[in-house]
Amino acid sequence: MDLNADLGEGFGHWTLGDDRALLSIVTSANIACGYHAGDADTMRSVCAAAAEAGVAVGAHVGYLDLAGFGRRFIDVAPDTLTNEVLAQLGALSAFARAAGTRISYVKPHGALYNALFRHEAQADAVVDAVRLFDPALAVLGAPGAVWLKRASVAGLRVWHEAFADRAYTASGSLVPRGEPGAVLRDPAEIAARCVQLATEGWVRSVSGRPVRIVADSLCVHGDTANAVAIARAVRGALEGAGVAVGRVESPLLHTRAG
Amino acid sequence: MDLNADLGEGFGHWTLGDDRALLSIVTSANIACGYHAGDADTMRSVCAAAAEAGVAVGAHVGYLDLAGFGRRFIDVAPDTLTNEVLAQLGALSAFARAAGTRISYVKPHGALYNALFRHEAQADAVVDAVRLFDPALAVLGAPGAVWLKRASVAGLRVWHEAFADRAYTASGSLVPRGEPGAVLRDPAEIAARCVQLATEGWVRSVSGRPVRIVADSLCVHGDTANAVAIARAVRGALEGAGVAVGRVESPLLHTRAG
Amino acid sequence: MDLNADLGEGFGHWTLGDDRALLSIVTSANIACGYHAGDADTMRSVCAAAAEAGVAVGAHVGYLDLAGFGRRFIDVAPDTLTNEVLAQLGALSAFARAAGTRISYVKPHGALYNALFRHEAQADAVVDAVRLFDPALAVLGAPGAVWLKRASVAGLRVWHEAFADRAYTASGSLVPRGEPGAVLRDPAEIAARCVQLATEGWVRSVSGRPVRIVADSLCVHGDTANAVAIARAVRGALEGAGVAVGRVESPLLHTRAG
Amino acid sequence: MDLNADLGEGFGHWTLGDDRALLSIVTSANIACGYHAGDADTMRSVCAAAAEAGVAVGAHVGYLDLAGFGRRFIDVAPDTLTNEVLAQLGALSAFARAAGTRISYVKPHGALYNALFRHEAQADAVVDAVRLFDPALAVLGAPGAVWLKRASVAGLRVWHEAFADRAYTASGSLVPRGEPGAVLRDPAEIAARCVQLATEGWVRSVSGRPVRIVADSLCVHGDTANAVAIARAVRGALEGAGVAVGRVESPLLHTRAG
Repeated sequence: MDLNADLGEGFGHWTLGDDRALLSIVTSANIACGYHAGDADTMRSVCAAAAEAGVAVGAHVGYLDLAGFGRRFIDVAPDTLTNEVLAQLGALSAFARAAGTRISYVKPHGALYNALFRHEAQADAVVDAVRLFDPALAVLGAPGAVWLKRASVAGLRVWHEAFADRAYTASGSLVPRGEPGAVLRDPAEIAARCVQLATEGWVRSVSGRPVRIVADSLCVHGDTANAVAIARAVRGALEGAGVAVGRVESPLLHTRAG
Repeated sequence: MDLNADLGEGFGHWTLGDDRALLSIVTSANIACGYHAGDADTMRSVCAAAAEAGVAVGAHVGYLDLAGFGRRFIDVAPDTLTNEVLAQLGALSAFARAAGTRISYVKPHGALYNALFRHEAQADAVVDAVRLFDPALAVLGAPGAVWLKRASVAGLRVWHEAFADRAYTASGSLVPRGEPGAVLRDPAEIAARCVQLATEGWVRSVSGRPVRIVADSLCVHGDTANAVAIARAVRGALEGAGVAVGRVESPLLHTRAG
Repeated sequence: MDLNADLGEGFGHWTLGDDRALLSIVTSANIACGYHAGDADTMRSVCAAAAEAGVAVGAHVGYLDLAGFGRRFIDVAPDTLTNEVLAQLGALSAFARAAGTRISYVKPHGALYNALFRHEAQADAVVDAVRLFDPALAVLGAPGAVWLKRASVAGLRVWHEAFADRAYTASGSLVPRGEPGAVLRDPAEIAARCVQLATEGWVRSVSGRPVRIVADSLCVHGDTANAVAIARAVRGALEGAGVAVGRVESPLLHTRAG
Repeated sequence: MDLNADLGEGFGHWTLGDDRALLSIVTSANIACGYHAGDADTMRSVCAAAAEAGVAVGAHVGYLDLAGFGRRFIDVAPDTLTNEVLAQLGALSAFARAAGTRISYVKPHGALYNALFRHEAQADAVVDAVRLFDPALAVLGAPGAVWLKRASVAGLRVWHEAFADRAYTASGSLVPRGEPGAVLRDPAEIAARCVQLATEGWVRSVSGRPVRIVADSLCVHGDTANAVAIARAVRGALEGAGVAVGRVESPLLHTRAG
C-alpha cells in the first residue's frame, strides 16, 4: 500500500505543514508546483528531500490562484488549463531532475481535484497535458472521477486513492466536509480503518453498512493539527498488520498492467 | 550569422511585438518564460510557431517581476535565483517538447542581463541553474559579461551577440540608452553596419574610430516601432552580401568546440 | 446621455486601447483597479487625465485574475469578494484624490459583471463593499441584473447602461457574443441606433421587433479595432440630434431621486 | 511610550505570527498592505481587531514582492514607488474606514525600510506618497534615516522608534543581524533595557558604553518564536516602572509640535 500526502505547500516566507516529518512516513509526495502554492526554493528543497528519502515525486497541479490556495473553482478555458498544467509539470520536473529523480505521477489539488470529478472539458484538458508531457506518468485520484476514466481511455496508468481520515457514504463517496462525522480525528481509529481497507478492501460507511473501497494509495493529510501523528499511526498499523508499505510503481506491489 | 529576437513577451490578454513576422526573419527566438512576461498559452504557441519555422528556441529568463517587465534589479538571493531560473527552464522545456523541439540556449532578460555583467553571485547562480538543467545548453550574451566567463569555466558553450541597432563606444561597450545616438533607427544604416560586422568583424564607434566586434548572433529588437522592418532589412542585406544566416548550433556555421 | 468606456486596462509594460483619445469623447471612465488590469502607475495617470478632461471616475472592479484579464468566473467566497472590492475601491480612490477628484460610481468588469446578473451571494457581496466604502457611490450595470436590484434595496443610486455596439433580443437582453450579428461594427449604424435609443427609448432587436431600452449611460468599448471611431461617431450623432452628452450625476441630466 | 509590532503578515491560506495576542499588548499595529504580505481578508480582519482593541492603525508599506516578503531591494523607479505606496495606503484606508478607524501613520517594511535610510530618490518618493494621500499622517522610522529628514522638511510629523530586541553600537545604529549579539532573546533583559530607554533615554551599547536613544515608540517583533512573551514582558516592565504606555498621537503623551 502506498501512502501519499501533500507537501511543499509553503510560499516564500510562509510555511505550511511539517514536510520533513511526513517524508519519513509517506511513500509518495504530492508536491505543489507554484500555481496554488510552492515557490522555486520550496520545489527544489522538497524534491531533494523526497529523493533522499526514497519517496516518489508527484506533481500536485492546481489552478493559478495563490491568493485562494487553489481552493476556488476557476472557469479557465480548457486549452489554457492544458498549458497551465504543462507549465507546472515542466517546472517541477526541473527540480526533480536536479535532485536525481523524476516525476512519477500527477494528482490535482483542491478545487481542480473536485472539478475533475465531473467537468469533462477540464478533465480532458488535464489528461491532454499529462499525455503531452510524458505518457509514462501515472495519474492519481479518487475512483469514479471523470478525469480518471478519460486518462484510462487515453492509455495512462490510473492509480486510485482512499482518504485515511474521511468518512464514506454507503455508495462509496466521501461524506462532504461540514456534515457531521465527515472528518475523522482519532489516530487509532483512522489507523484501524486503514488496515481494514488495505487487508480486506472495505470500511464501515456512516450508515453503518460496509462499503467496498479499492485503493492503490492512502491519502494522509498534511496540514491538520495532528497530521503527523495520524500518518505515523497509519503506517505503523499497516506494517504491524503485515501490509507492505511502498510506492505504487514498485513491481512487487503493483500488478495491474502499466 | 545567427539573428535573435525577443519573442513571446505578451501576458494574458496583453500582446507585445509581432511574433509571427519576426519568426519569418530570425533564426533564434528568445522566449519569455513567465517571470517577466509570457504565460502558459503564449509559451505554448510561440514554441510551436518557432518549431514550425525552424527557429531555435532560447530561454529568455528574467527576474520574477511581471509588473516591472523584468527591467528592475532585484537583490534576490543567489540560491533563489538558481531555483527561479530552473523553474523557468523547466516550464519552457515542457512547451518546447510539446512542440517537438527543445531549448537550445539561455539568454537573460532586461535587468538580469545587465546585472550579470558584473554581479558575480547572481552570475554564478544562473550558470549553476543552466548546468543543473542541461549542460548541453549554450548561453548567449554580450562579450565581457562576468556570467559568460563563469559559464565558460563551467564548461558551457558560450555564444556572443552584438546589437544591430545600438551604437558602440571605441572600447566595444554599448553607448548607454539615453545618451545621444545610442539607438540607431534607420533600417538601411543598421543593415549596412550588420553586414560590415558579419563580414569584416568591426563597426564604426560613436567616436568615429572602428571597433572590433566578434559575434555569433545579432540581436534585433522586437518591440520598437519599426522592429520588423529593421530585422527584415538586416537579413536581406546579410544574405545579399553572401553571409549565411542560420542558427549558431549548425555545424556548418559554428566551428568553435562545443 | 452619459457615455462610458473601459480605460486604464494596461499593466506594467503592456498597454491596451487608446485612453487619451477616449477621454476626449466619453463622459465616464471605468478605470481598472489592479485586480484584472491596471497597475499603480496606470491608475494614477488615468485618474489624472480623467480629472483634467472632466470625465467621471468609475471603479471598474473585477476578480483577482491578471492572467485571465478578469474574464473567468472565480468561485470566490462572498466575504472575500466584499474585501477584494473594498481593496480596489480604496486603491483607486487614493489616485482619484491625488488627482483632485473622487470615485463617482462602481461598475463590475468581465466575468464579475456577468456573474452579478444572477449570482446572489456575489451580488450581495459587491453591494456590501460599495455601502461600506461610500454609500454615496452609484452603481452602473445592465437592467435586470440581480446586483442592481440588491443595490437599489440597499439604498444605493442605480444607473443603467446600454451597449452601443451590441444587438438586443426582443426581450431586451444582449445577443450572446458568438451568435451571428451579436456585435455591430459599422460606426454610422451604431451611432444611428444610439440616437434612437437616446431620443425615443427603443432600438430594433435582432428579430426585427422594436425593444424598449431605458439607459442613463451608453457603453462604448475601448479595445476593439475601431473603438475610437465608433465612440466619436456616437458622440457626434448624439450631439447632432440635440442630445446633451454629460455625466449621469449632473443634476440637469439626472432627474431620478438620488 | 508607544509599542509597535508588525501585524497582518499572512497571505491567503498562510498565517504568520499571533496577531490576536499582540493586539492585546501593543498600542500601534503596522499592518501589511498587500504588497509584501496581507490580502484583503487579512487587512479587513486586522483593521477590525485593531479598532476594537483601541490600537492605532499604521500602514506597513513595502515593495511589490510577495515571493520575497518585501525583503529584497527592488530598484523601482521613484514615480512608480510613489504610486505603489499610494495604492497601499488607499487599500488599507478602505479597511480602516470599514472598521470605524483610520490610518494614523506610515512605516516602511523590510528592504524598503532599509533602502530609505540612504536612497534619496526612493525616500522622496515615499514622502511624496504620504503627502499626497494625507499630510496629517505621521511617519515612523529609525532616527537618522534620510526619509525621515525629508518627511520633516515636507512638514510631516516624524515619530522615532527603537528596537526592543536589537543591540546598538556606540554610535546609536543597530548591530547588523548576523553579527554576534545583534539580536537579544531574553525577555527579562529586553524588558529591563526598554525601561531604561523609556525612563532615562539610553541603553548600553555592544561596546559597553551607554548610547543615547530617543524614541516615541518601541518596536517589538511579531514573528520570532517568543515574540509574544517578549512583548508582554516589555509592556509589563514599562507599566511596572510607571511609564505610561499609549499611542504616540495621544496629546498627553506626545509633546512635540505636530
